Parts: sequence; C-alpha cells; structure tokens
Amino acid sequence: MPKRLLLNCDMGESFGLWNMGLDEQVMPLVDLANIACGFHASDPMTMTRTVLLAKHAGVLIGAHPSYPDLVGFGRRSLQCHPQEVVSMIQYQVGALDGIARAHGMKVSYVKPHGAMYNDMMRDHDTLRAVLEGVTQYDRTLPLMLMATADNSAVKTIAEEFGALLMFEAFADRAYDEHGFLVPRSVAGSVYHDDRRILQQSLQLAETGVVTTLEGTEVALEADTLCVHGDNAESVMAVQHIRTALDRLYAGEGT
Amino acid sequence: MPKRLLLNCDMGESFGLWNMGLDEQVMPLVDLANIACGFHASDPMTMTRTVLLAKHAGVLIGAHPSYPDLVGFGRRSLQCHPQEVVSMIQYQVGALDGIARAHGMKVSYVKPHGAMYNDMMRDHDTLRAVLEGVTQYDRTLPLMLMATADNSAVKTIAEEFGALLMFEAFADRAYDEHGFLVPRSVAGSVYHDDRRILQQSLQLAETGVVTTLEGTEVALEADTLCVHGDNAESVMAVQHIRTALDRLYAGEGT
Amino acid sequence: MPKRLLLNCDMGESFGLWNMGLDEQVMPLVDLANIACGFHASDPMTMTRTVLLAKHAGVLIGAHPSYPDLVGFGRRSLQCHPQEVVSMIQYQVGALDGIARAHGMKVSYVKPHGAMYNDMMRDHDTLRAVLEGVTQYDRTLPLMLMATADNSAVKTIAEEFGALLMFEAFADRAYDEHGFLVPRSVAGSVYHDDRRILQQSLQLAETGVVTTLEGTEVALEADTLCVHGDNAESVMAVQHIRTALDRLYAGEGT
Amino acid sequence: MPKRLLLNCDMGESFGLWNMGLDEQVMPLVDLANIACGFHASDPMTMTRTVLLAKHAGVLIGAHPSYPDLVGFGRRSLQCHPQEVVSMIQYQVGALDGIARAHGMKVSYVKPHGAMYNDMMRDHDTLRAVLEGVTQYDRTLPLMLMATADNSAVKTIAEEFGALLMFEAFADRAYDEHGFLVPRSVAGSVYHDDRRILQQSLQLAETGVVTTLEGTEVALEADTLCVHGDNAESVMAVQHIRTALDRLYAGEGT
Repeated sequence: MPKRLLLNCDMGESFGLWNMGLDEQVMPLVDLANIACGFHASDPMTMTRTVLLAKHAGVLIGAHPSYPDLVGFGRRSLQCHPQEVVSMIQYQVGALDGIARAHGMKVSYVKPHGAMYNDMMRDHDTLRAVLEGVTQYDRTLPLMLMATADNSAVKTIAEEFGALLMFEAFADRAYDEHGFLVPRSVAGSVYHDDRRILQQSLQLAETGVVTTLEGTEVALEADTLCVHGDNAESVMAVQHIRTALDRLYAGEGT
Repeated sequence: MPKRLLLNCDMGESFGLWNMGLDEQVMPLVDLANIACGFHASDPMTMTRTVLLAKHAGVLIGAHPSYPDLVGFGRRSLQCHPQEVVSMIQYQVGALDGIARAHGMKVSYVKPHGAMYNDMMRDHDTLRAVLEGVTQYDRTLPLMLMATADNSAVKTIAEEFGALLMFEAFADRAYDEHGFLVPRSVAGSVYHDDRRILQQSLQLAETGVVTTLEGTEVALEADTLCVHGDNAESVMAVQHIRTALDRLYAGEGT
Repeated sequence: MPKRLLLNCDMGESFGLWNMGLDEQVMPLVDLANIACGFHASDPMTMTRTVLLAKHAGVLIGAHPSYPDLVGFGRRSLQCHPQEVVSMIQYQVGALDGIARAHGMKVSYVKPHGAMYNDMMRDHDTLRAVLEGVTQYDRTLPLMLMATADNSAVKTIAEEFGALLMFEAFADRAYDEHGFLVPRSVAGSVYHDDRRILQQSLQLAETGVVTTLEGTEVALEADTLCVHGDNAESVMAVQHIRTALDRLYAGEGT
Repeated sequence: MPKRLLLNCDMGESFGLWNMGLDEQVMPLVDLANIACGFHASDPMTMTRTVLLAKHAGVLIGAHPSYPDLVGFGRRSLQCHPQEVVSMIQYQVGALDGIARAHGMKVSYVKPHGAMYNDMMRDHDTLRAVLEGVTQYDRTLPLMLMATADNSAVKTIAEEFGALLMFEAFADRAYDEHGFLVPRSVAGSVYHDDRRILQQSLQLAETGVVTTLEGTEVALEADTLCVHGDNAESVMAVQHIRTALDRLYAGEGT
C-alpha cells in the first residue's frame, strides 16, 4: 500500500461580500487547505478567517497563488515575463504567511492556481519561474503539482532548484494512459457519480493506480488527492472519501 | 546630544511602467527605506527591485502599508472596520517580507502610509488596529509614527500591545508649539529653502529641538528624520543632510 | 391617491464568478433596475447579461455608480475630491450606457450606491458633485435619492443644476418623524415580517404616508419604492408587493 | 498624392499620481488622440483632463481600450473569451464617451491598445470580437488597425459587421516586404534618427509607399500615421512631421 494519501482542497475563494465554497463544512474533512492569496480570489479579511478555520481544524495551509485576475478568477492565461511570476509568487506566499504568522500558523506548501497551474504543467519556463519563486522564499516548502504516469521531467527540473515536490491526483476526473487528465470537453471526463469518485480515491490510496477511461490501468505517484467543497454534493463526496480513507488507514479495510 | 538620528525615505512608489521617485539616487543616502506594498503603489516586480536596491546599499527596509487605493495613492481616507486594518497590515507586511526573505533581507519596521498614517495619528481606534496588526505579526517590529511634543498618549496605547515605537520628525515642515505639523494650507508651513531644511535637521540631531513657525522652541523625541527623494532638488537636500549628519556623528562638528 | 409607485431594485451585483442576487427572478417584478457599473460590483460581462435581462423584462435601467471599492462593496466612505466624484459618475454612467446602447437600451436615471449615496444625502458638496456629474452627462437623466419629510433643501440644490430628481422610499425600513430611516442599530428598524413590508408599501402607494416607529404618520413624496432581490424571502416579498400594486392600479383595491 | 494623412497619438496614459507622456505638448500637433479608458492606464480624472486638452486643441478623440491589466500596461496577452472582449470594448468606449459627452465631445473612432491590438491583428476571432463590440455600440465608429501590404482579409471580415476601418502606419518602424513591421528584436527595426522618421512620414504622405529594411518599396494604404509623445525627443519628431505635412498639404512642397 502506498503512503498515506492526504486530501487537499481549494479554500478561501470568497472575495469581499461574495461567498464561494462551503469552507466551514469541508475544512474538518481535509488535511491540506490551499488558500487563495488575493490575486484570483480572497482578500485580507477572508484570508484571516480561512487561516483561523484551518487552525481550529488542525489543517495545514498552503499558498494558492495566481495571476492577478479577479474578474477571470485566475483562469485566463496571462503572458507574463518569468521574473514577474517569481515576484508574484513571493508576494502572495509572503502575504498569506504574514496572516498565518499573526495567528501562530505558517504556510506549509505552495500550489499555483488555475491558469498559472496549467501553464506550469505545460511550459517549463513557467515551471522554473514558479520553482525559483518558491525556493528563494523557502527551500523547505514543497511545490504541489499534478501527478502523471511519468514525473521524471518535472523532477529533473525541480532538482536544479533543490526544490521539494508534492504530487496530486484527482478523485473526480478521468485519466488517459499517460496519466494525464482527459480534457473536460470529452464525454465522461468528469465523474459526477459519488461511487465512481469514491472508487477512484480508494484505488489510488490502496494501490497507487487508477483505471483510465479506456479501461487500462496507470500508476500515479500521488501524495495527495484534490477534492472540492463547492457545494453540498461535493462536500458529501469528500465526507465519503474521508470516512473510507480513515477506515483504510485504521486497518479496517474498505 | 540625542541619539543618532536615522534618515527614512518612502521608496518603491513606482507602479508597473509608471515611475516615481529617484530611488537609485536616494537609497545610498538614507538608513531606512519605507517600501510600498502594492496597495497605494508598487507591485511585486517593483518591490523586488527596491528590496535589491536596499540590500546593495545596506539600508534597512520597512513596510509602508496603505489603504487599498492605487488611483488615490493611499491619500484618501477609507472608512474601514478596525479588523480590516489589522488584516490588511498583516497582508502587506507579509508580502514585503516574502520578497525580502527571497533575497536574504527582512522587514525591520512598519510605517503606515498617507491616509492610514494620518488616521492612526488622530484616531486611537485606528492606532490600536495598526498596533494589533504589527504586534500579532511580530512583536519585535517597531511601528514608526509622528513625534509630537507629548508622545505619552501614544506610548500608553502601545504598551497595551507590548509594541515598540519609533518616532519620526520632518526636515522640511514647520512645527507649532505642540510639536504638530503646521497644516500645508498655512503660508510658510513647507520649507523649500535648502538651508532652512538643513538647519532644522541639524538642530534636531544636535539638540532634539525644533524652532516653531512662531519662533519658539519645542522638543521632539525623534528617532528618525523623514526625507524625500521625489526629484533632483529633494535628493540634493538629502545629500546635504547626510553629509552634515555624517560629519556631526564623526565628531567633526557642523 | 399619489402617482403610480414604481419598484426599483439593485441588480447586476455579481462579480466575475461570484454571484449575488436573484436577478432573473426579481427582474420581471420591478420597474427600474439599478445596475452596478464595475466600481463596487459587476464587470462588463455581468453588465451585459443584466442589461439583456432588463430588456427582455421591459424594465428601465438606471446606473448605480459607486466609489471604487470592490472589496468593500462600495459601503466604505472614501474621502474624494468633488471633481473626482463628478468624473467617476460620468465614467460609470457612460460605461453602462455603452453596454446598454449596444443592445438597444439606454440609461434612464442614476442612483448612487452605498457610501456614495449616504455621503450625497448628508453632505451637500457630494450632492453637488453627483448632480454636476449627472447633468453634464445628460440633463434629462433624473437622479434618484432618498425621500424624507422635507425634500426642499435637496430640491433647491438640484435647481442650481437644472437637475431632475426621483425620490425613493423603503418598504422594509422603519421611519422616524422627519421621514429619515431609523438607523439599523436600533431594534425594530428593519422589517423582516412580510406583512409589515407589504403594509408599508401599500400605505405609501395609497396615501403617500408611512407610519413611523413611534406610531405617528409622516408623508413621503416618493416616486419609487426600493425593494431587494437578495434571497428567496426578499423575492417573495417583492412578488407580494408587485401583486398588490398591480391590483391597486387596476382599480381592484387591495 | 494619397489622401491627407492624419497624425494619431496615444494619450491619457497617466494613472492617478503617476504621469506618462507629454500630452500637453503633443496634443496641438496631432489630429487624433487615442485616449486610454482605465483598463491599461488612465482613470476618470485623467480621462476628463485629456478630453479637455483634446477639446481645446480641436483634436478628435478615439477610445483606446485594453485588456484589464494596469500593472502590465495592457501589454500582456490575456486569454479572454471573445464575448468578454465584446463587453469590455463596449464598457470602455462607453466610459470615455460618457466623459466626452459631459464636455460636448464624442468618441470618433476606436483603436485597441497593446496586446489586444496585437491579438486582433493576428487572430481573426479576436478581430471579430472587437468588430462586434464596436459596431454594436455604433456602426458609424471606425476601427483603427494596422495597414499592411494586403488589407483584404481584414476588410472582408469587417464587411461581415458592416464596420468602417481606418488603417495606420508607423513613422519610426522598419517594414518588411509584406508591409509588416520588422520585429523589435531585429537590429534596425526601430528608427531613432529624426530625419529617417521624417523621411518615412513624408514618403507615405506623398506616395503611399515605404522603403523596407531590405531597400525595396511596399505600398501601404494608410489613413493615419502613429506618432509618440513619450518624451522631448519624440515630441520634437512629431513637431517636424507636423510642420512638413502642413507645408505639403498647403501646396508648398517639402
């Protein structure tokens, strides 16, 4: 059985008076809270509330930095110079760390958001900029990125920076034979069935493998599973995964 | 003779492509750089450049947080809840500290900017919010505020928070008998004459006293003198003050 | 019976991915849609959707300009120069008119939002700035403001600018004997009881009078009644008011 | 001789306290002022001042809309949905028209800025979105874009929308044989020599042709010449072009 699979969830994505996500409900169910830093969502007050929620639930916090794009929720790629990415990572991680520190907490890892995450996964210049941003800030902070069947290229680049990595898999997304996510445009690429989501989560936790859309198996070296707290249904799914993982790790089987 | 008077100057107030201030020229002349944190001016890249300038000049950096108001340069009072002020201080100090840390530097003090500075000086609720923001973040970081003839009220409030304070005086502003700045609307309240500015600086450094607009003297318990690097004239004035202070502290007299 | 009372409601207060208000449900129930212009809420896409909703429902649109403060939803007073208020009104009204014009609609009135509305009601300099902004843009656009027992001071100022005015009353707020709203901090100042809200609406429509919190009556010269579409309860209240007013104006009585 | 060549210049690109461009000096020298609309530069007060400058100089104003990116000055491509581009064009053109209208002026054409301009020139989906934005707003407003040796593809697309076009050429940039600008990365692509700039301007005005970097000639069907008011040197160049064109059109020759 692979090492214990942690649950991570995007949090603190409200902005001013606008609410998003059922943070209070999902926080006690996860291990890692990816907290928005004010560039795609959140603001100093929301970050403070979210850090306190994590503190009370005993959840580790990670910085969830983004391109500066509130209107687009950080989902629109912005053609930045790599040095801009380095600086905006450090600004956002530091800002969250400042609020965390004020409440006896600290940032424990970094997971880029949205378009910055996608750009980092497909473009090595962006990945290097993110790695430089994180490691200059604190070489002991791992960068979280997407597990695929072959993480060797990413690991080689991380070694240039002496960077630590965490790999995440997705509970509710279909994979292809290379361990890449099947694009959302493909039918069947997003699982809505609670049992299918739970099955994939447990398969990963127990065997380190997922069954692809084509029915073959692919191994994913994942440290953590990304879950969602957007609405009551997704929180329910997280609850089921949490319960199943707790049983599994308590040696009770599934 | 009072303790050594440090020179502080607002820095890093460019924004994107827009330049403000002759930071490269004034940085080597001062002891303390108040660096904007992105709310009234600056951005992650500008902050990085300014931190590196300070590092190369051996200048301590301070966070210069503000209300969120780029268009108004943080000079317009914004009616915030005190808890908003607490969080926005921690966000901004942390953001600058993040960029500083990436370059082997750290924030050494906090000086609020513009309207937040003025509100803090006249309204004890705002002062308490600023103090809570700073001390929750790091109790060893002093808050810089304005020296007046009687700093006792401010000191009493700071003690509630176990906060350290630094007091600043102004080289180019006329004082009244209570050690308050004469409002800019009053004729003669702002000194433009290089010799008058130098004279007030040396008077403070040597005797801890300034001559008021009415011609009386008032003692100011100042740790630092605020100077400006906006244009060639003000940089020249800083150069003169720097030279005179260096001579003074080298025991060469003035 | 006073002239026909129109229903106005704040709309288009979503921002990017963040939703606010049940615009689709409440739009068909009102006469006037106060549409946010991007300074406290909304964005170009949200404004386009909201204008189209109004068009399909045959509802007149008004500009709902604000101080620039997305994080604070325009509820925090910002100490602006009056000329800044003039320009920001024209910018926002023009922006909404641009989107309206693209869809065969036009802005029909202006109602400032939040802190700008409050500042305009208590400070004549702000009121003059708003009036200058509106009348320079289009002298035929009425400004909507709060009806009190004595609107003469406001009317005198409006005459300086040749400005048209519309007065609004509130269905769910308690009034004092001067026709001012009882502050929210006072117990009983906000009506949550559907029947009380409906009663005040009909009282105004039929007699132009409201019963104050003390039980006396005060006349309000109101052209329109402000209603809310925040949640299912408030939409239900609007539905009841709409039905009652329709019956009233159809001569069916209440 | 081709039709009279108009001079256009980007204006109103200051932001809050930050100045950019010598607008007061260059405004009297040009025919068309492309005014920033608050998304890459400018703010309501700056727009008001710029509109008044144009009015006093008798210069036509054009809207200069951009992706929302103050920090990057609109030079970073942002992956927007075409419908977002449509709405953001209408928002910005309307905002400037609102301020213009308040001062008896109106927007006379639209020229996208920076990355939006570049995206429009190379991607037909973006061009269609811009054209839809402009023509829905006002079918009589021409869109200004870059003249090349063959404008037929762009004209065909414009016809789909019934859109009017204006083509601009550049005085200080080297062209290739297809009438495209030689990239800035190529040596010699940007002319700094005042006489070379003046020569290209007059060549275009008199013959409708430019000499390419390779020494061949290419015809450009240009309605207007883009000039710059960034600094004293560029203003001087504009002054020389203005004088030469005035002589040319007065029939005095060059």
